[in-house]
Amino acid sequence: MAHATRKTAHSAQKATTTTIPTKAVTSALPDQDAVVSEVDLQLDQVASKQDTPKVDVDYLNNYLLGAWADERLAARELAADPALHRIEGLPMDEHRARVFDQLGLLVKHGAVHRAFPTFLGGHDDHGGNIASFEELVTADPSLQIKAGVQWGLFGSAVVHLGTEKHHHDLLPDIMSLKVPGAFAMTEIGHGSDVASIGTTATYDPEAQEFVIHTPFRAAWKEYLGNAARDGKAAVVFAQLITAGMNHGVHAFYVPLRDDDGEFLAGIGGEDDGLKGGLNGIDNGRLHFDHVRIPRTNLLNRYGDVAVDGTYSSEISSPGRRFFTMLGTLVQGRVSLDGAAVAASKLALQIAITYGNQRRQFTTADDDTEQVLLDYQRHQRRLIPLLATTYATSFAHEQLLVAFDGVFSGTTDTDADRQDLETLAAGFKALSTWHALETLQESREACGGAGYMAENRLVGLRADMDVYVTFEGDNTVLLQLVAKRLLTDYSRKFAKADAGELAKYAVEQAAERTYHGSGLRRFGQMVADFGSTARSVEQLRHPIAQRALLTDRVEAMVATVAGRLRSAQHASQADAAALFNANQNELIEAARAHTELLQWEAFTDALDKVTDPCTAAVLTWLRDLFGLGLVEKHAAWYLINGRLSPQRAQAVTAYIDRLVARLRPHAQDLVSAFGYTQDHLRATITSGIEQERQDEARAYYAELRASGQEPAKEKSPRKAKKK
Amino acid sequence: MAHATRKTAHSAQKATTTTIPTKAVTSALPDQDAVVSEVDLQLDQVASKQDTPKVDVDYLNNYLLGAWADERLAARELAADPALHRIEGLPMDEHRARVFDQLGLLVKHGAVHRAFPTFLGGHDDHGGNIASFEELVTADPSLQIKAGVQWGLFGSAVVHLGTEKHHHDLLPDIMSLKVPGAFAMTEIGHGSDVASIGTTATYDPEAQEFVIHTPFRAAWKEYLGNAARDGKAAVVFAQLITAGMNHGVHAFYVPLRDDDGEFLAGIGGEDDGLKGGLNGIDNGRLHFDHVRIPRTNLLNRYGDVAVDGTYSSEISSPGRRFFTMLGTLVQGRVSLDGAAVAASKLALQIAITYGNQRRQFTTADDDTEQVLLDYQRHQRRLIPLLATTYATSFAHEQLLVAFDGVFSGTTDTDADRQDLETLAAGFKALSTWHALETLQESREACGGAGYMAENRLVGLRADMDVYVTFEGDNTVLLQLVAKRLLTDYSRKFAKADAGELAKYAVEQAAERTYHGSGLRRFGQMVADFGSTARSVEQLRHPIAQRALLTDRVEAMVATVAGRLRSAQHASQADAAALFNANQNELIEAARAHTELLQWEAFTDALDKVTDPCTAAVLTWLRDLFGLGLVEKHAAWYLINGRLSPQRAQAVTAYIDRLVARLRPHAQDLVSAFGYTQDHLRATITSGIEQERQDEARAYYAELRASGQEPAKEKSPRKAKKK
Repeated sequence: MAHATRKTAHSAQKATTTTIPTKAVTSALPDQDAVVSEVDLQLDQVASKQDTPKVDVDYLNNYLLGAWADERLAARELAADPALHRIEGLPMDEHRARVFDQLGLLVKHGAVHRAFPTFLGGHDDHGGNIASFEELVTADPSLQIKAGVQWGLFGSAVVHLGTEKHHHDLLPDIMSLKVPGAFAMTEIGHGSDVASIGTTATYDPEAQEFVIHTPFRAAWKEYLGNAARDGKAAVVFAQLITAGMNHGVHAFYVPLRDDDGEFLAGIGGEDDGLKGGLNGIDNGRLHFDHVRIPRTNLLNRYGDVAVDGTYSSEISSPGRRFFTMLGTLVQGRVSLDGAAVAASKLALQIAITYGNQRRQFTTADDDTEQVLLDYQRHQRRLIPLLATTYATSFAHEQLLVAFDGVFSGTTDTDADRQDLETLAAGFKALSTWHALETLQESREACGGAGYMAENRLVGLRADMDVYVTFEGDNTVLLQLVAKRLLTDYSRKFAKADAGELAKYAVEQAAERTYHGSGLRRFGQMVADFGSTARSVEQLRHPIAQRALLTDRVEAMVATVAGRLRSAQHASQADAAALFNANQNELIEAARAHTELLQWEAFTDALDKVTDPCTAAVLTWLRDLFGLGLVEKHAAWYLINGRLSPQRAQAVTAYIDRLVARLRPHAQDLVSAFGYTQDHLRATITSGIEQERQDEARAYYAELRASGQEPAKEKSPRKAKKK
Repeated sequence: MAHATRKTAHSAQKATTTTIPTKAVTSALPDQDAVVSEVDLQLDQVASKQDTPKVDVDYLNNYLLGAWADERLAARELAADPALHRIEGLPMDEHRARVFDQLGLLVKHGAVHRAFPTFLGGHDDHGGNIASFEELVTADPSLQIKAGVQWGLFGSAVVHLGTEKHHHDLLPDIMSLKVPGAFAMTEIGHGSDVASIGTTATYDPEAQEFVIHTPFRAAWKEYLGNAARDGKAAVVFAQLITAGMNHGVHAFYVPLRDDDGEFLAGIGGEDDGLKGGLNGIDNGRLHFDHVRIPRTNLLNRYGDVAVDGTYSSEISSPGRRFFTMLGTLVQGRVSLDGAAVAASKLALQIAITYGNQRRQFTTADDDTEQVLLDYQRHQRRLIPLLATTYATSFAHEQLLVAFDGVFSGTTDTDADRQDLETLAAGFKALSTWHALETLQESREACGGAGYMAENRLVGLRADMDVYVTFEGDNTVLLQLVAKRLLTDYSRKFAKADAGELAKYAVEQAAERTYHGSGLRRFGQMVADFGSTARSVEQLRHPIAQRALLTDRVEAMVATVAGRLRSAQHASQADAAALFNANQNELIEAARAHTELLQWEAFTDALDKVTDPCTAAVLTWLRDLFGLGLVEKHAAWYLINGRLSPQRAQAVTAYIDRLVARLRPHAQDLVSAFGYTQDHLRATITSGIEQERQDEARAYYAELRASGQEPAKEKSPRKAKKK
């Protein structure tokens, strides 16, 4: 099963290429008789045959497990173990001690070595490693991140930036947790701008040592997991200086503490203390006062210093070298994306289960109170988030496949690596923000019960909060995506000859007339007038959704690129100012692009669903996701003449219908996530709410039967009527 | 000063009436030569005379203090006392003990008795009481809410629902904290729907006692502050049953614990344990097993039971009686609104101060890194929130004046009370959500530093989280506002004669043609084509902003009302289904209405700003708020033909200009909130970031001067160029 799925998932990967989609689909909306995909026709038949298709929960659960189903299931079984669970309200020190001990349990279970080299007892299995690792978030996000620090950052830096000798000498103790370690990259003064860190590693050829030094307070290493308490060593990023030349940021293996846990000479630090969450991790600060390490402690895969101090690197450009080194650490972002998806699933499984049991207010004559999820607003709050959660889940699976391809060497070209970086940056940003939104909306949808620690939502949200700014601040990540879009865009024209450019210019002008003056819109209006049904019919087609989403990305990028063109001959300061004046729109373009990729991932995943009823429901969910994006950005579509007012209204009306149509399937759709009460661990999902209501109903029924029920005082007016 | 301001604020109150604005302003956009207010002309002159007006920070600070400046200043001085501050990471039990002791300090300082009767040592000062009380949130939200439970809910219920004997017998011990008490309204099974609670108070005429009883688990009182630890008594809400008749929910004074803190006979409870925040409060559950209390423990202001069991009330309708009793408790919502405003101010003062000092990435040639707030995206993240925070601040001041008018008896008609309820519901919902959004955006804008507990944002957010669902779930509150809008709307037509109705019908049809077919939009397009300047000119006018905001509310309410009209003769079930199908849109209408009221409050407040430079800057801020609302709802304006695509684009372009124009004033605008480091208490606002940067800069300058600075490795290509 796992193997078969893996194959299809692999073949799906190419669909998520991050280059801007070609101009082929810009004619925003297909004619009514446009090509309809076979799947779509099939679904229409299903929908007409059977008004309420039913999700095959087991099938969908299996399908969602993806390419590394076995690894994921094993990790979930492990995460169900109470020994690994977060205990709410544990004081920080005890929580830290508990999580450290839990890391030992992970070692014992062999749960964290999949990505390490086979010759050291690992499996060189990168995708399976992340798939299993990200499930730990259901036990305790502190455990996930602390394990991530030890094996995903500290250990991984030795694997990817070090060479054979480092692997042999260092990895066994890292893998066994004998040497817990910190990943000392960020400094107080430089987080997003890693290239500007202040820590120096100056080579002393006489001693054949590097001198690691913190020249000022802003260069203290900061926010490092394992630094405040457990770390015995660190991979320290510093400016490599040899023979009077600064060769930029490199990584060094630096011992920190002795066996008694005391800092070694020249090393000091501080505890970051309490954080907004993740308090099972001992984040702290480190500083170095001329600390000497052997020359061979330079992790020298991408740059080395000879005994005499000569620097060498197989990558001649210092910029490219820097980004290559950083690129090996992309797995952090991949795993945060996956953890965010898992947390969103937990949140919705809790809120939708409760919303299907909790009742409040009577709506009809018979005194039966209505379950929350039957309220339109409650549906509108939760069901679109469910659609987005499915989109992020399928998108993550594609990211994982792409990641595994690059790190296994199967698909490891420069282009593959760049695509992976862009995918990881975009997906991580959107999925972590989505997790926070979902956790918060779920917590509010559960009312006061949602605020109780025992119902998990507040604790998970507090822990996940930092996911949006660490391992790449989301805003900075989207800017990375945006820059890639601009590069692709300009490349398209670098290759184009004069004729093609002229053609483009004409198209551009034509487009402006067509879209900008409202001609297209007007045409739509005439066609649509009095008949929203027809336009809804069109919007249901994936071709139409893709066209709308793609068109927006292209137009946004083209607009900004056009404005930035004048910067080519400007001073650096003027160019920076021009770029800054477009920063907001650029970031929105990156978001639009990533949303399109999520939609494509959902659509790709749909194509492979073999159970027709499940496919029908998932198609509604995909449509809800796609049209939800169109509704969210409706102003853009209207301003730019891509949607007529009538059609925009039809989008909203159709979303209302989709939400109502999906409502009966909401419980199945969260059950298919496959988490059990061992993972949810919320009191309100234990069935207690239903029990209490049954008890209350029985009480009133008995009271009525006994003839003891007090009459209700009537309003004088109403009393008279009777 | 305080007195003078109070007067003007009082006179401003009428502007916030919550009835739907009249049709007079529906012609959405004034002609270019429309009447321009005198103030506006004045501002134009200021802006042209002086390109960069400067905010008079002291003046604005004073102005923001509002009608109860003295009380507010005294409370801030008190809140600056370290003895009242939250200690981050304090275990729950210690936090609870600390907050209880802090309540004693408040009593000692005479800080919490302003609203109590003068004859008992209070001041009958309702507005001043809330103004002072809400400032406590800066010390510790747990302190604010625990004090709110004791004096604002428990004590206030005795004041407003009890009569003279209760005041004499009970209030002194409540005021002195000798009797800490719980406000036992909510049950596990019923939160928003208070009328359906299960607890019963059955009168026994022989014993002349009420029997308080919890018939099933769902009727346990839940989430009550003071219930788990400190409460010696409670005001318990229960169904009053006498002589075989249920007269609905009434309040009873019920002793809970003896002097040793043990539950009295028949009473039991549980601790709610850890929550998402506010852990200085001992929330818990209570249940009653046939607990007997004297007849006179019924808080009998609105309903009484004679010795023989005869029920009497001055309010004959049980529904109106219920809402009158609940209405006396509106001050909880008023004070949450104020606390949310204060928390938003703290968040922005922290994030904007840091954003003005923190630097990251160089943008120009000279190696100077750019401060975060110079990035367009950073401005777009924080400055619109600043505009909304000013709007919520001015709106809260109007709410406070309205509240004081009703509770002091100055303006205490039924209509006044209804307006107050509606205002409080709408403002509380929007301001508490705004506080969460602002705290989160501020935390993210501060990056990793924002996640450290020492920088306060995460702790404040965790505490404020529950503000959006307690004292009225925000969604339910907006539905209350919506129902009021529908009532007003139908009243307008109840009074209308046939001629007027016919006229309305014609207008409606005309409007549909005019707006719906795009004619108006087309007119705008022709007028605007090629000239965004002119349309921006118009949007700057408050008349245009008001027209756009008002028109939307009216149209939304009219649309839903039209759809609901068919429910008049439907079955209760069908009517409920129809209402439910429009619930989402109704809630959006309520939001739009409340946003309009916030805008009106901002505009009213502007009219009274006497310093012209401050007024100029605040006018930009108001425009940013108003046009920000138009931008947020741009799709609606476009779909409904209220804005042409060109004009909608002009709105966004103008917002970009406003944000850039306000950026130099951001620091002044947060300084004017008047909070000092004693209130902020964030490490990152202590100046430490600036110090560290100065130190780093000095280090590099010295290194350069010494000739020891290592050269930077150049890219081979770049090196060749040189």
